[in-house]
Amino acid sequence: MMEQEQIQELAQETPSKIVFLVIDGLGGLPHPETGLTELESARTPHLDRLAGEGIRGLIDPVSPGITPGSAPGHLGLFGYDPLKFFVGRGVMEALGIDFDLKEGDVAARGNFCTVDQQGVLVDRRAGRISTDTSARLCRQLSQIRLDGAELFVEPVREHRFALVMRGEGLGEGASDSDPQREGLHPLPVEAQVPGASTTAAMANAFIDRARDCLASSGTANMVMLRGISQRPDLPAMGQVYGLKPAAVAAYPMYRGLAKLVGMELLPTGTKVEEEFETVAEHYSRYNFFFVHIKGADAAGEDGDFQRKVVVIEEVDAHLPRLLGLNPEVIVVTGDHSTPAVLKGHSWHPVPILINAATCRRDGAGGFSESACTIGGLGRMRAVHVMSLALAHAGKLNKFGA
Amino acid sequence: MMEQEQIQELAQETPSKIVFLVIDGLGGLPHPETGLTELESARTPHLDRLAGEGIRGLIDPVSPGITPGSAPGHLGLFGYDPLKFFVGRGVMEALGIDFDLKEGDVAARGNFCTVDQQGVLVDRRAGRISTDTSARLCRQLSQIRLDGAELFVEPVREHRFALVMRGEGLGEGASDSDPQREGLHPLPVEAQVPGASTTAAMANAFIDRARDCLASSGTANMVMLRGISQRPDLPAMGQVYGLKPAAVAAYPMYRGLAKLVGMELLPTGTKVEEEFETVAEHYSRYNFFFVHIKGADAAGEDGDFQRKVVVIEEVDAHLPRLLGLNPEVIVVTGDHSTPAVLKGHSWHPVPILINAATCRRDGAGGFSESACTIGGLGRMRAVHVMSLALAHAGKLNKFGA
Repeated sequence: MMEQEQIQELAQETPSKIVFLVIDGLGGLPHPETGLTELESARTPHLDRLAGEGIRGLIDPVSPGITPGSAPGHLGLFGYDPLKFFVGRGVMEALGIDFDLKEGDVAARGNFCTVDQQGVLVDRRAGRISTDTSARLCRQLSQIRLDGAELFVEPVREHRFALVMRGEGLGEGASDSDPQREGLHPLPVEAQVPGASTTAAMANAFIDRARDCLASSGTANMVMLRGISQRPDLPAMGQVYGLKPAAVAAYPMYRGLAKLVGMELLPTGTKVEEEFETVAEHYSRYNFFFVHIKGADAAGEDGDFQRKVVVIEEVDAHLPRLLGLNPEVIVVTGDHSTPAVLKGHSWHPVPILINAATCRRDGAGGFSESACTIGGLGRMRAVHVMSLALAHAGKLNKFGA
Repeated sequence: MMEQEQIQELAQETPSKIVFLVIDGLGGLPHPETGLTELESARTPHLDRLAGEGIRGLIDPVSPGITPGSAPGHLGLFGYDPLKFFVGRGVMEALGIDFDLKEGDVAARGNFCTVDQQGVLVDRRAGRISTDTSARLCRQLSQIRLDGAELFVEPVREHRFALVMRGEGLGEGASDSDPQREGLHPLPVEAQVPGASTTAAMANAFIDRARDCLASSGTANMVMLRGISQRPDLPAMGQVYGLKPAAVAAYPMYRGLAKLVGMELLPTGTKVEEEFETVAEHYSRYNFFFVHIKGADAAGEDGDFQRKVVVIEEVDAHLPRLLGLNPEVIVVTGDHSTPAVLKGHSWHPVPILINAATCRRDGAGGFSESACTIGGLGRMRAVHVMSLALAHAGKLNKFGA
């Protein structure tokens, strides 16, 4: 496939505008009673019209059969091959709580857990302690001081927390202490590459001190770390594509991902309506808008088919606000499928529509999994979507003589 | 994807014949009044029958969203990945005027241009001087002698010319002197790799001498060079695929491209009828025929929807001459789309039909963008077409045990 460096060679700045509407977890599976997916069950006259005047298809966020997390799902859509660029779990955890990760910071996903008197792991989630308890324990752990690094211990949810280490000489490539199975001892963190030895030593020192600190904390008497990682150095979208990109996202993790690729973050509300209004307010100052709708994925994860339908209908109902801005290119898709019947992310390809004056209309019906299956875009990896959007916006020069 | 070296391992020589009919710029976009593309508007009973008895699909010449030049468009069809093999602009310019480029020759695309008294570029095209004027100025520049290289200065069209330098130690990797924008000084040619220093020095010396030589030539008082390049060393189709390939193309650039991949060039006329007759005449001596039809692209570039329709109908009308030869495999496609409504090459995928006794017929209707969208080949990169043609011709052995 064409590398991002090659696309950069072809990119040219133009005033034309692209709106990238990402309905998180959009793709679904049929409801057993109706045989219709969430998107097919939703009443979506505006999306249907947009699709009918545009072109449809299915995208594989990473590769067929691969269920993506949020990071690869979004990176692919932004044109960063998720098989090439990787965002570690620790970094995602930090982004998810809006932690301002600096260059060189090392972040880890932490779990409070329970060990017995021999130090053997008996509960990987410490009895799923409450978020409040977790927050209190994090404040305790924040008292830990280690030579050579500043530490940040931030609660996430229930037994989960984020640890960020800031200091000289910290690097990636340290192993997890979580053995992933009860009945085993937590593992020492080990440097898997030479540059990670300081990080590993620091992580082990933190774990030792945390064990002492938590000795009398009931079930949460130990911590485990995994996904020890640094913010990846991603080329900025502005530089690669010659765009002025802005992100409209209510949730920190998606703002964080947008920031990683150099988008400006626009302050917005949590409602679809507010997000679309934010695009309108800032419309003149940018020429690429990533608009992230979280509700569909959350409903899918909860197995709430009907709520996912309602979220999609809500997006549709407010769509005229975006359409009225008359962007040259509108893309509507998701970062992955989250079928309510599976209660989680899945590997199923994601419906996509592209609407632009230069689309070769496919006349395949409305916006649904079934229409997208026979759509004119066919089925392709998500990493191609950005090139298509740029092409339709007149932002890519000819390749080769 | 499978590399050409791997395909070579599988290729076997057989007498079966493949006809590859490339209608340049075939893919289109709907006419605003009828909603039908050029191909959909054309009456094409023979192509429709060929498609109906074969299989259809859409191909991306390079990658989704990428608009190809003629070189990547054709290389892909011949099974040479255009992301791997590159033909420089200077080489394409030389091929376009039938210049017999030797190994080691360095070719550049030249522009006559206008600079003011301070040497600042004021017109990149020298007021688009006539081809006659350009030819006269090229004869003047041909008088320039430089130590260490033989120079050829050949007119192309209007302000464009080709410069070929032939000598020892010339290499690729020298930058353009064209700053691509008026209001700037032309740039010195610089070696971007060590092997290009002689080339860069030679190019700068030529530019200096040309400036003196053109001092009294009105608007054409300066030259700029770009796309300084050498003929790429492409493996020959005969060797890779075990074929005896021949090219039937009326225009020099396409004959040049065919020659780059080792095809024999058959003398022919400019009419569709003449090209098909040429295939018939030489039919027994080769087993692969690349037949290039230029008119559709030229009409598309001119924005002449109706003329493109007529060219396609003309191809269809004469098709029985080719069909009567009963080749085992017929492929009909284009090297890229050239929608008349866009007046230029575009990124839209190109319709393709493959007709062979071993096709799994898709029964999708005639030969059109819409039928190809739901065709049995789906959508794929053009680089796979050659393997499919070889397979249907019984020329590829099994891969692996």
